[in-house]
Amino acid sequence: MPSKKSTAAAKSAHRPKSILFHSDASDPDMLYFSRFTAFDPYFAFSIGKKKIAIAPDMEANRMAEESCFDEILLLSEIRDGAAKRFKLPAGQIPDSCQLVRHIAALHRISGFTVAPRFPAGLAFELRDAGIHIDIAPADGIFPQRLIKTPDEVEALRKGNRASAAGFRAVAKTLAESKIKRGQLVHDGKILTSQRLHEIISIAALAEGAVALHTIAAGGDQACDCHNAGSGPIRAGELIVVDIFPQRPSDGYWGDMTRTFLKGKASDGQKRLVRTVKKAHAMTLDMIKPGVVGSKVHHAVEDFFTAEGYETSRAKGDMKGFFHSLGHGVGLQVHEAPNIGLKGTWRFKKGMVVTTEPGLYYRGLGGVRIEDMLHLVPGGNEPISKAPYKWQFA
Amino acid sequence: MPSKKSTAAAKSAHRPKSILFHSDASDPDMLYFSRFTAFDPYFAFSIGKKKIAIAPDMEANRMAEESCFDEILLLSEIRDGAAKRFKLPAGQIPDSCQLVRHIAALHRISGFTVAPRFPAGLAFELRDAGIHIDIAPADGIFPQRLIKTPDEVEALRKGNRASAAGFRAVAKTLAESKIKRGQLVHDGKILTSQRLHEIISIAALAEGAVALHTIAAGGDQACDCHNAGSGPIRAGELIVVDIFPQRPSDGYWGDMTRTFLKGKASDGQKRLVRTVKKAHAMTLDMIKPGVVGSKVHHAVEDFFTAEGYETSRAKGDMKGFFHSLGHGVGLQVHEAPNIGLKGTWRFKKGMVVTTEPGLYYRGLGGVRIEDMLHLVPGGNEPISKAPYKWQFA
Repeated sequence: MPSKKSTAAAKSAHRPKSILFHSDASDPDMLYFSRFTAFDPYFAFSIGKKKIAIAPDMEANRMAEESCFDEILLLSEIRDGAAKRFKLPAGQIPDSCQLVRHIAALHRISGFTVAPRFPAGLAFELRDAGIHIDIAPADGIFPQRLIKTPDEVEALRKGNRASAAGFRAVAKTLAESKIKRGQLVHDGKILTSQRLHEIISIAALAEGAVALHTIAAGGDQACDCHNAGSGPIRAGELIVVDIFPQRPSDGYWGDMTRTFLKGKASDGQKRLVRTVKKAHAMTLDMIKPGVVGSKVHHAVEDFFTAEGYETSRAKGDMKGFFHSLGHGVGLQVHEAPNIGLKGTWRFKKGMVVTTEPGLYYRGLGGVRIEDMLHLVPGGNEPISKAPYKWQFA
Repeated sequence: MPSKKSTAAAKSAHRPKSILFHSDASDPDMLYFSRFTAFDPYFAFSIGKKKIAIAPDMEANRMAEESCFDEILLLSEIRDGAAKRFKLPAGQIPDSCQLVRHIAALHRISGFTVAPRFPAGLAFELRDAGIHIDIAPADGIFPQRLIKTPDEVEALRKGNRASAAGFRAVAKTLAESKIKRGQLVHDGKILTSQRLHEIISIAALAEGAVALHTIAAGGDQACDCHNAGSGPIRAGELIVVDIFPQRPSDGYWGDMTRTFLKGKASDGQKRLVRTVKKAHAMTLDMIKPGVVGSKVHHAVEDFFTAEGYETSRAKGDMKGFFHSLGHGVGLQVHEAPNIGLKGTWRFKKGMVVTTEPGLYYRGLGGVRIEDMLHLVPGGNEPISKAPYKWQFA
């Protein structure tokens, strides 16, 4: 899916000493640190390279099996220790601030580095209690997340397989549909965006991934890039299908987009698709280590303009190629780097980014084609794979 | 699913004046405030009862259609204003702190109330810049989330329908399975926990909900309450199935548990199921407005003890009834109140809680039965509904 941010990629090489977390598996940094799927927030911290968790007692066994923590402390024991340290009355549970102060005292830690998204409530309390809290820079607590390991590339490939399964299901559905009075009929029912969302979700599930908020938007709906689409799909309209499923087993995402059309395409639609495909091919050639990200975005916009497809970012009249060309993907569906209008950062070996040129004009419709690329020496290798066939008679 | 927290329910009646958010739809308070599913964090704030969003331009149309904001400002315009206010060089994008300072100046706001989970990085910067930041109390920025509106109850009912669909699919699968050498065979394959997770996900999807991290754990695996289960399901073992699906359309959850067994149950297993069912029925009678939550938890533990089922919370030897009896559900699968060992809070009309007594003994297995209750004058009404049939021959 297209990202709307225009921030630059990571530059800093911040190396925190003792990192503190209080979050669950919805926090990508915590997931990167722990490789553990927690439903409720818990504490974890590092001492040098050692990773330590404070496990709710009920989670301790599962954490020992599934996480990459070097040491797992039991929450009940840490609570008992903190209650003793702060001389709490019997039965009173220490609060989060007391727990952290107890840990700091036990391990002789005078302060922690936390991610910018660390909860402010606790951070303020810790500072007030004399614990030094250092906020990691905006590029994150683990800037190394920018460069993907082979395992991460493999996890992203699996995520994209779920996207590809979704496209196969959509193609099959469109091929099987009949056109009646301008609408599509499948399995005896009018085919809607919502039905496509369902079909895609089921296909992604069979590949071990969850596709939420899938975009399957026809006609002008697709010109709002994050509109998921609703209501009947019509014959002869461009259908933008953007599938970004996440794998619950490890937290990694897929992200691919294809554009479809059932029935007869107009010359204008054909030319729009052809032009976006050319831009897509151009980016596959241009994206390589050392190249400035924004340069590729500008090259695409210039190409579109030269082909007669103007971009406008005016309020209430966004058209043409108004979103970013691409973005990083990993434990977040949108993460650094953002390939957009601004910034001077350069592609590096090991990055994984989407390339997703698109053109959108009300009346004509939208086209977006998105693949995921792994930066390798001298170029890139597509991580995603799915046919580009878009017309279904 | 059982919750492990033992904190008390909300007490305070904190009424913030201007609330500030910077988050996405994964933040339940932001979702409560906006009713908008955002993929990336954005700013929103309130002035009195008025709700204002700063929409990334690409999201503005969808936000106008789907959210409950009273006013939607365009991010590009706010950025332009902030750049002018801080006299930034051409092309430089104002940072988050500058954006908020610009909003505060525009609307003559001297400070904001933020949720405890507001990002610490930005909170520190704002304080350093002289903006007053008040952290809402630990019971949350919207303590009214504790009391559900009729619309919320209806959304939770739909969530539970997805759980119930999952149980129907499991029951059908167990009924159709054949026992071969102690294992179950379904569709020509050994039936595993993973296959049950898939079957449940597909059933939940058809009801418009996403069931992640579903528990379908047999035998001793179920004695670790958050173990999802893996590997073959065996004949004659108790299978705890805990399904907590979320509806992407509105963010509300279902949460129900049933216990199953394929083949022949032992007398010990039968008595275990019977005892948990009795405890469950007892809680349906006890849970009503005015009753102290922890009293019901203790009554269940005492009943189990009287029946000869001892509870131990010793490290490494947790058995019996060692998790909380229940928890609130809404935009979080675990939210206030927690019905556990501690606390003096009382049930109130309008709360929605689970009741999920359970007993777990290695060797014998685990049993948990969970339903969701809506507190009404003088008692409660079950929101969830599914058969309790557990034995499949």
